[in-house]
Amino acid sequence: MSGTNRRELAKAAADGAGPAVVLVEPQLGENIGTCARAMLNCGLTDLRLVRPRDGWPNEKAVSASAGATLVLDRARVFETTADAIADLHKVYATTARPRDMVKPVLTAKAAAQEMRAHHSAGRQVGLLFGPERTGLFNDDLALAESLITIPLNPGFSSLNLAQGVLLVCYEWYQTGDIPPDSFLFTGNSRPATKAELVNLFEHLEAELDGTGFYTSEEKRPSMVRNVRNMLQRAHMTEQEVRTFHGIIAALVGRKKQRRQEG
Amino acid sequence: MSGTNRRELAKAAADGAGPAVVLVEPQLGENIGTCARAMLNCGLTDLRLVRPRDGWPNEKAVSASAGATLVLDRARVFETTADAIADLHKVYATTARPRDMVKPVLTAKAAAQEMRAHHSAGRQVGLLFGPERTGLFNDDLALAESLITIPLNPGFSSLNLAQGVLLVCYEWYQTGDIPPDSFLFTGNSRPATKAELVNLFEHLEAELDGTGFYTSEEKRPSMVRNVRNMLQRAHMTEQEVRTFHGIIAALVGRKKQRRQEG
Repeated sequence: MSGTNRRELAKAAADGAGPAVVLVEPQLGENIGTCARAMLNCGLTDLRLVRPRDGWPNEKAVSASAGATLVLDRARVFETTADAIADLHKVYATTARPRDMVKPVLTAKAAAQEMRAHHSAGRQVGLLFGPERTGLFNDDLALAESLITIPLNPGFSSLNLAQGVLLVCYEWYQTGDIPPDSFLFTGNSRPATKAELVNLFEHLEAELDGTGFYTSEEKRPSMVRNVRNMLQRAHMTEQEVRTFHGIIAALVGRKKQRRQEG
Repeated sequence: MSGTNRRELAKAAADGAGPAVVLVEPQLGENIGTCARAMLNCGLTDLRLVRPRDGWPNEKAVSASAGATLVLDRARVFETTADAIADLHKVYATTARPRDMVKPVLTAKAAAQEMRAHHSAGRQVGLLFGPERTGLFNDDLALAESLITIPLNPGFSSLNLAQGVLLVCYEWYQTGDIPPDSFLFTGNSRPATKAELVNLFEHLEAELDGTGFYTSEEKRPSMVRNVRNMLQRAHMTEQEVRTFHGIIAALVGRKKQRRQEG
């Protein structure tokens, strides 16, 4: 899955007022880089680092980011989690388990919808992610309004940091202006008109008449309907209708040829 | 995000009748391992490999799988894509662009819902993923009914193989029996009853009477209501109500003490 366009990328960055992603004590530079990549995949650019173990900037983050340098270049480093989130109105913390805390727990999707509502109302929101090995500290969790849980196989729910960032940011992106759930890609062609389709059906039916395909005149109407139904499920383009005319002609021609040879 | 439980894991594996994941010509063993991990995260175990470049089994896949060896142990190797999908009823191909083909294109979420419907009707479904660098071959795409597109930042939509597998399988998992969108985690405690809350409110209001907090007897009822509303938004547990009684007592005690000292 590829696809990069400088102009679109710059646009996404300019629009980058979505949630901030706050990584608390990230250990590996590679993970910071893959998180930046996942963020930009989802149109997010506001990366904040609290006490990154190996300092900042970090060359390994750059090489692991697959070109998401725009996010890394803007990343800001903070001494405490409280500093990193000081300007935010709502903060969501990701953790495998709520531990011994009384907290609302939201699925990633529900959190994304809530974040979108806050965002639309002009509020700044942020996502907290903890260190790779331990997850967030309890003091950091207590700074968040809500916890996010990602519904996954309870028997094997371990994600690496970038996978967690990707899934939560993906859900954020899905609440935005995305393509329709499904459409038929037709390239340079266009869907056939009904007139073109009926013309094709009649061509086929005329060629089938007299071949014995229609077992009786009585059954012909229902057989015609069944084939028309089947062919319409193919959602043919104008080009494909012409191809199908060609298929019919070729098959008829071969039969005629065989008859002549026979 | 961690959490592994052998019994749950075995259960997920036994239930593993979800979509097959077919990797066509995967290049790196690491990527096969991280794909297996992403699959098991989402309860899927049917991995099929078409001509893996570095042969099979592959040690690097095992070490990258973070323990998803159950998926790797069951993986099957095929010589052609057609062989790998022979028993499937519906196949969805993932590709960045539909190229020059007339195909229905579904978002990952819409595809997941369609797959779930097929699955519930007893049909076998599968997901095709192409080689890391090139994506699926056109001949492979022509074996699939539909294409899957993952809605992401159009300016930066490049995902690695395991990230693509994770997002599509994640959407599959979301169509299953997952936890509610949100709930309040209360650990070993339970939500306070209304009687406990009203008792707390009355304790607080009684202690505030005579302190000058209520600026006038006329304003008292609305001030009481405002504070009751605020405190109810905290959704206190029974334990927290007791804690709050303690806070009130402590503050009153400190004031009394200060008065005695003063």
